[in-house]
Amino acid sequence: MNNAMIGFIVGSVLKIEGILLLGPCAAALWYRENAGWYYLCVAVFCMIVGWLMTCRTPEDHVFYLKEGCVATALSWLVLSFFGGLPMYISHQIPSFIDAMFEAASGFTTTGATILSDVEGIARATQLWRSMTHWIGGMGILVFLLAIIPLSGGSNMNIMRAESPGPSVGKLVPKVRHTARILYLIYIGLTALELIFLLCGGMSLFEAVNHSMATAGTGGFGVRNDSFASYSPYLQWVATVFMILFGINFNMYYFLVFRQFRKAFGMEEVRNYLLVVLAGIVFVFCCIYPQYGVADGARHAAFQVSSIISTTGFSTANFDAWPQAARAMLVLLMFIGACAGSTAGGLKISRVVIAVKTMKKELTAYLHPKSIKKIQYEGKPVEHEVVRSINVYFITFLILFAGSVLLISFNGYGLETNLTAVAATINNVGPGLDMVGPTTNFGHFSVFSKCILIFDMIAGRLELFPLLMLFHPTIWKEAASSTRLGRRLTKQNLQ
Amino acid sequence: MNNAMIGFIVGSVLKIEGILLLGPCAAALWYRENAGWYYLCVAVFCMIVGWLMTCRTPEDHVFYLKEGCVATALSWLVLSFFGGLPMYISHQIPSFIDAMFEAASGFTTTGATILSDVEGIARATQLWRSMTHWIGGMGILVFLLAIIPLSGGSNMNIMRAESPGPSVGKLVPKVRHTARILYLIYIGLTALELIFLLCGGMSLFEAVNHSMATAGTGGFGVRNDSFASYSPYLQWVATVFMILFGINFNMYYFLVFRQFRKAFGMEEVRNYLLVVLAGIVFVFCCIYPQYGVADGARHAAFQVSSIISTTGFSTANFDAWPQAARAMLVLLMFIGACAGSTAGGLKISRVVIAVKTMKKELTAYLHPKSIKKIQYEGKPVEHEVVRSINVYFITFLILFAGSVLLISFNGYGLETNLTAVAATINNVGPGLDMVGPTTNFGHFSVFSKCILIFDMIAGRLELFPLLMLFHPTIWKEAASSTRLGRRLTKQNLQ
Repeated sequence: MNNAMIGFIVGSVLKIEGILLLGPCAAALWYRENAGWYYLCVAVFCMIVGWLMTCRTPEDHVFYLKEGCVATALSWLVLSFFGGLPMYISHQIPSFIDAMFEAASGFTTTGATILSDVEGIARATQLWRSMTHWIGGMGILVFLLAIIPLSGGSNMNIMRAESPGPSVGKLVPKVRHTARILYLIYIGLTALELIFLLCGGMSLFEAVNHSMATAGTGGFGVRNDSFASYSPYLQWVATVFMILFGINFNMYYFLVFRQFRKAFGMEEVRNYLLVVLAGIVFVFCCIYPQYGVADGARHAAFQVSSIISTTGFSTANFDAWPQAARAMLVLLMFIGACAGSTAGGLKISRVVIAVKTMKKELTAYLHPKSIKKIQYEGKPVEHEVVRSINVYFITFLILFAGSVLLISFNGYGLETNLTAVAATINNVGPGLDMVGPTTNFGHFSVFSKCILIFDMIAGRLELFPLLMLFHPTIWKEAASSTRLGRRLTKQNLQ
Repeated sequence: MNNAMIGFIVGSVLKIEGILLLGPCAAALWYRENAGWYYLCVAVFCMIVGWLMTCRTPEDHVFYLKEGCVATALSWLVLSFFGGLPMYISHQIPSFIDAMFEAASGFTTTGATILSDVEGIARATQLWRSMTHWIGGMGILVFLLAIIPLSGGSNMNIMRAESPGPSVGKLVPKVRHTARILYLIYIGLTALELIFLLCGGMSLFEAVNHSMATAGTGGFGVRNDSFASYSPYLQWVATVFMILFGINFNMYYFLVFRQFRKAFGMEEVRNYLLVVLAGIVFVFCCIYPQYGVADGARHAAFQVSSIISTTGFSTANFDAWPQAARAMLVLLMFIGACAGSTAGGLKISRVVIAVKTMKKELTAYLHPKSIKKIQYEGKPVEHEVVRSINVYFITFLILFAGSVLLISFNGYGLETNLTAVAATINNVGPGLDMVGPTTNFGHFSVFSKCILIFDMIAGRLELFPLLMLFHPTIWKEAASSTRLGRRLTKQNLQ
């Protein structure tokens, strides 16, 4: 295990977090808030610790998938820890586990909050919450890749651990360039939404917050009623951008480089838009007696886009909607949006390939000797991809069932527990019943909150990188390489 | 498609059902009930139709897996239809869909009832309900195999379509002998439970009913409070036999033939007993403050055994238990008991192999080049078995999610819908909330009942055989071979 390299990466992440924490400091300065000092303290602390951890570049650049996973998982835990710290020490969130929950929810783009009054906290904290979404959406390690040169193969192992979806596509041969292009598209789309929101009369501060939260498919808002009190125009803008940020970023890449045939031929995007449309029509049919046609269409489109893109904004209390609409929204939580987007959930590509696997099995009953491979995006799907998707489903199920069982000690009903875990592991945000859009996660016990934090990070990192930390071999290898390192140092000294 | 052979098998099943329907006739004669006449009418009708369908033995004996599936699925639909008919025409169940629900629930050994007053129906119907469990538990087609000689390979294709579990083990080279041995063990264990129940002072009629319902892991009782009003001794007897009927019957085979090492070395049985024990301890810890140690242990042991073996008897209203106990019971519904038993659910072997797949994936992250195969029952698991288990999970999930969505149109809460589908697709019986142990399924709409009937049969036949009926190719092939048959007959006539 390359401990030095892992430490170097975690240190770099800390340095970046320190720099990013200057954002809320600036906001505090502008709005003359005391909270800024706490952010500044943590920022300086992060930068110093990060600098100490990275002052010596590790000699050994060899970096395998396991090290990529461990570095990613540790980075996300460290991010959440230091991300929550300023909210805690500034007493805006009195409990430390709550502050860490809020930060983890932010970075993982979940958007589940423990705050009952979002309007009551400092502007600096509001901005920081939205910033965590924006950073977490594309991935801080991908950001690292975009700016810091690492040796060849190592990059791909980090990219693979942090990127959502069953297979990582390199758009251009160099991982570093891929990461840069992705970030440029991300910044461009965020800016575009910002402009559209400003045109609708939203204040600059709110527009910045909402466009960052939409871009990361997060869901933290700055108003207690989320998007309900904004004008229909602003709600439609958010609807469109939530759908757009759920699309595989490869499509935008193709569009930018004028490869229109490739862009519009993407099976995943087609399937995604079809599911979105079907979901909207389904929910609309359930709720239009309650709202009428115009409002019903707006609420249905907004809520379906918000849930399938795992953003989690709301314009209405969908917990009070008819049961069929609620069931559909819960189903969409699990499906999620495209791989290669900032969204969570199982991802459209996994679901579609799973459905195709089922169809193939039925055909195999009819023609036992047929050996046709499943086709996806016009190419046969490799056996390895199908296998990894199957394992993903199984691991997801085991984690899901275990989490529901553990948080049921809290004493809440099955609906609350199921949707709380569904909303966190899929990085959606709000669930139903006691974690519905009008309530929050603050009432859970500390133990339940730890489970839900675990679920959020596991969901964001697509399960395995985080689970790796619980594999005994990892610790043994880390310990043995530390011993080896000490021995080598001793020999050098003698 | 060998239509003639499929017709012959369905006809044979009808003949057997006709003979079995004479059971309730005898009970009605003994207890002087009018209901007996209706059973007699249906019995005679089934026998005549069955005789007409089987009077000409088909010439072509070639019989593939697809035909095995279609024959099995059709047989189970026909069984449920004619099984429900006498309850409907005797006006004991006023709605036809309710009668068919009750019969399907019986044959699939689910035990979900639409009756609110079981004690109020005729003894003949009570006996028939228990008989359906007993027949459905081992499988009527396996019974057919035990008594009717079919040509070589065909048998295996039926056995595979009807038997629970990921792989069908032939105990002895001849399928027919395997089926006979299985039935002998089944009869022996049922008789043993009958004796134990009689020793506890249960009346003969009730003891016969309960031992048949336990043997099939069904769950229909003859009292409105299921097992609650029986003595602790009788409840413990039922507990032990519910666990025993959840064990893979291969173990009993090994015991009978004194292959003790093989019998006690079965990994699946060990895992099953471990899960049962863990479940009992877990539930006991949740409920002992409510019941005290002795009663708590009895209720926990009874309910865990009842749910994991997918029987569905109850001694207490577990819907009112603490949330953690309820969540555990729901989890156990999905796990189910051993493959090769009469129980439903996903089956222990599938779950264990799935967990091992997950572990292997984690190891693959550590050592990407390791190619160790998963071990089960001391042997490496074939790639094909792992694949089919994965596909099973995915198909199960899709069916589960679809069913929950469809029955949510009924307007009930998510907890009711989820557990109603879980209780039917896993062939358990009672769920939680509005389908809890003190309520029944009668309040669902006709559409929802159809979905749940589908789920019960799909769950009992392990999904694919029933799904095959919805594959368009099956109907095309059936139609084309009918046309071919007509053409051949014409040519013969000319």
